[in-house]
Amino acid sequence: MTAPRWDHLLMDATLATFAGERPFGSIERGALAIKDGAIAWVGAMADLPGSAAAVARTVEHLDGALVTPGLIDCHTHLVFGGDRAREFDMRLNGASYEEIARAGGGIASTVAATRAADEDELFRQSLPRARALLRDGVTTLEIKSGYGLELDTERRMLRVARRIGEALGVGVRTSFLGLHALPPEYRERRSDYVALVCDVMLPALAAEGLVDAVDAFCEGIGFSREETARVFERARALGLPVKLHAEQLSDLGGAALVAEHRGLSADHLEHLSESGIRAMATAGTVAVLLPGAFYALRETRLPPIDALRAHGVPMAIATDCNPGTSPLLSLRLAANMACTLFRLTPEEALRGITLNAARALGLADRGTLAVGQRADLVVWNSRMPAELCYWVGGDLQRSVWVAGKPLPQA
Amino acid sequence: MTAPRWDHLLMDATLATFAGERPFGSIERGALAIKDGAIAWVGAMADLPGSAAAVARTVEHLDGALVTPGLIDCHTHLVFGGDRAREFDMRLNGASYEEIARAGGGIASTVAATRAADEDELFRQSLPRARALLRDGVTTLEIKSGYGLELDTERRMLRVARRIGEALGVGVRTSFLGLHALPPEYRERRSDYVALVCDVMLPALAAEGLVDAVDAFCEGIGFSREETARVFERARALGLPVKLHAEQLSDLGGAALVAEHRGLSADHLEHLSESGIRAMATAGTVAVLLPGAFYALRETRLPPIDALRAHGVPMAIATDCNPGTSPLLSLRLAANMACTLFRLTPEEALRGITLNAARALGLADRGTLAVGQRADLVVWNSRMPAELCYWVGGDLQRSVWVAGKPLPQA
Ligand SMILES: [Zn+2]
Ligand SMILES: [Zn+2]
Repeated sequence: MTAPRWDHLLMDATLATFAGERPFGSIERGALAIKDGAIAWVGAMADLPGSAAAVARTVEHLDGALVTPGLIDCHTHLVFGGDRAREFDMRLNGASYEEIARAGGGIASTVAATRAADEDELFRQSLPRARALLRDGVTTLEIKSGYGLELDTERRMLRVARRIGEALGVGVRTSFLGLHALPPEYRERRSDYVALVCDVMLPALAAEGLVDAVDAFCEGIGFSREETARVFERARALGLPVKLHAEQLSDLGGAALVAEHRGLSADHLEHLSESGIRAMATAGTVAVLLPGAFYALRETRLPPIDALRAHGVPMAIATDCNPGTSPLLSLRLAANMACTLFRLTPEEALRGITLNAARALGLADRGTLAVGQRADLVVWNSRMPAELCYWVGGDLQRSVWVAGKPLPQA
Repeated sequence: MTAPRWDHLLMDATLATFAGERPFGSIERGALAIKDGAIAWVGAMADLPGSAAAVARTVEHLDGALVTPGLIDCHTHLVFGGDRAREFDMRLNGASYEEIARAGGGIASTVAATRAADEDELFRQSLPRARALLRDGVTTLEIKSGYGLELDTERRMLRVARRIGEALGVGVRTSFLGLHALPPEYRERRSDYVALVCDVMLPALAAEGLVDAVDAFCEGIGFSREETARVFERARALGLPVKLHAEQLSDLGGAALVAEHRGLSADHLEHLSESGIRAMATAGTVAVLLPGAFYALRETRLPPIDALRAHGVPMAIATDCNPGTSPLLSLRLAANMACTLFRLTPEEALRGITLNAARALGLADRGTLAVGQRADLVVWNSRMPAELCYWVGGDLQRSVWVAGKPLPQA
């Protein structure tokens, strides 16, 4: 007798593959085989070659349970020190932004707390946030730096991001976000800080292998289009892809800039213009929508969803998990908000946290259930893909697999 | 040596007692003792009589972790058959309400699925929803009937509600909501249905001990003030307290009606008038706010929070967990929505899911950390009460105690 062809076979699953054009890429009464950490076969049970027992070492019957690709959170700032619950409380008790700033609030407080935390402390504080995302089916997440704003702390944040991936056994992609805010010590020396980011911080961190992509906050209260272009040029010289916080509060043409640099994604986009959309469509840049920030800030201006659809710009959804404007710890809840607040269809929202989120991270090996993809997948206590967006909160995942191995239940 | 005075002592806790006037009723470096399922002592560690080891059988040091009363969800419809994910999907794909109704959607679909499910099936489908609430720190919840609209199914729903309480070891209060919708078979015989509810269903279910309170949906698309008054009168004749879905979509004077009957609560209240508020204040009727429905329906008219404050009407917050207008499975998320969308302070939101929620259920034995109260409490992975409202989603509870016993981790 020859050895079974596959390591593991999931039988009688409702598969939402997000491959192909069928709604959700659905396969009813489907089967999925895993070999060497990758998906080796996917299709209808009826088409399985040979009997299940003969072809796989272990076989699991799912009784129709839904299986999707592992979820991908392509935009988070979840490594930081402290939190901003006190500021949240003050604001709801009527404190003005000025009073909060005087009490040490705002992003400056997160920068101070992050600088003050050593690596172990930063890891200890950040790990539960990553764990919360995993509980909801996330198997790959992006984590940005940007609360250090000086070399040592930016390095510490990125190292902690890598450590989180190792500790939890999930994929972590890092983005260097030196141009997140002007650090207080550079208040009178803007261009010195931009030069420090471009000429010192980015090359050093890239050389240490800590940077998978380069991001910036292009906004009136952040950095200009020209400052952003400087760091993008340096990134490309180092062979690193770029992405951008763009058009959140105003239209600075950031989306067109990122498209010019063939960037992975432009993120937020409430004030995105028609020409920005066209540039993104041409460049294949993903639109990452962040409804958690829209919700928490009680914004009223929606991103131009219809125009993004019309131009075929792929849309991804992410938590934007951060202490100030989106303390959101569930990607499935972000997808619900994308449906409820932005009127995406459940299919668009789910493609936005699988396939298109992978694309926003430049990852071609995950985000769908297709032969050759990494076997990152979630088995859900549901039979219907739309249900993942319909429930607000709750605990729907049954088991989570990363590279063909089940994760211990968080 | 005499036996220790207490069964269990929690030491070095940050207590949010919600007793007294201090913000959150906070006690820093606090201690709390449990005896025979009730709170036997609460105060600052420094004031403990004698050494901890001498006074308690077991002692647990919490290192400053926050302890609150067990959370109370005072308005849910979580027992039902089926779900409405398909309808959610259709609506986001552009289907009109008419098309959805023709496809069998709307409340009629939930009534049909609930009628079709036997008791075990209804229990099996509903239990995970209750479990999801528990995971977030809920120790008492209310569950309404109202998807049967005939005696057998209403009875089955209420029996399932009781069974959920027994299975999970938490407090469940039932509300009979016969006047939820006009059942299809009574379309031409409105007043016959109201008579059936008042003269047959309510007395029968009350005699079986299945009814803790009586509720109705007083609305243009529900039942009139006069119809509601009929069931309220019957409820009071049976010695049962009343509550009401009032002023959600229009002002029918429901809040004043419930106040006239010294009702426990009026719920929703987006269209509540000044005179309704005054009547509630006089009667001591609690205003139950349901931001999940406001969010899911994308309402824009806020309940009159400032006027409720000005008149001293106690405000509670609940999930309204239901398949059509609020598929919300987290009470902490409802509290976050109350802060974010309704601009309640974290303290108001937390009093709304503890003390005031208990009051909305007529329960005087829980909702605060005070001597003599049931020892229902939650130990949180946090030190700051506001943090419970600040995070959107996530998994913050460390352990949950009901009547002095730790719940097995859900
Ligand atoms: Zn961001
Ligand atoms: Zn309700």
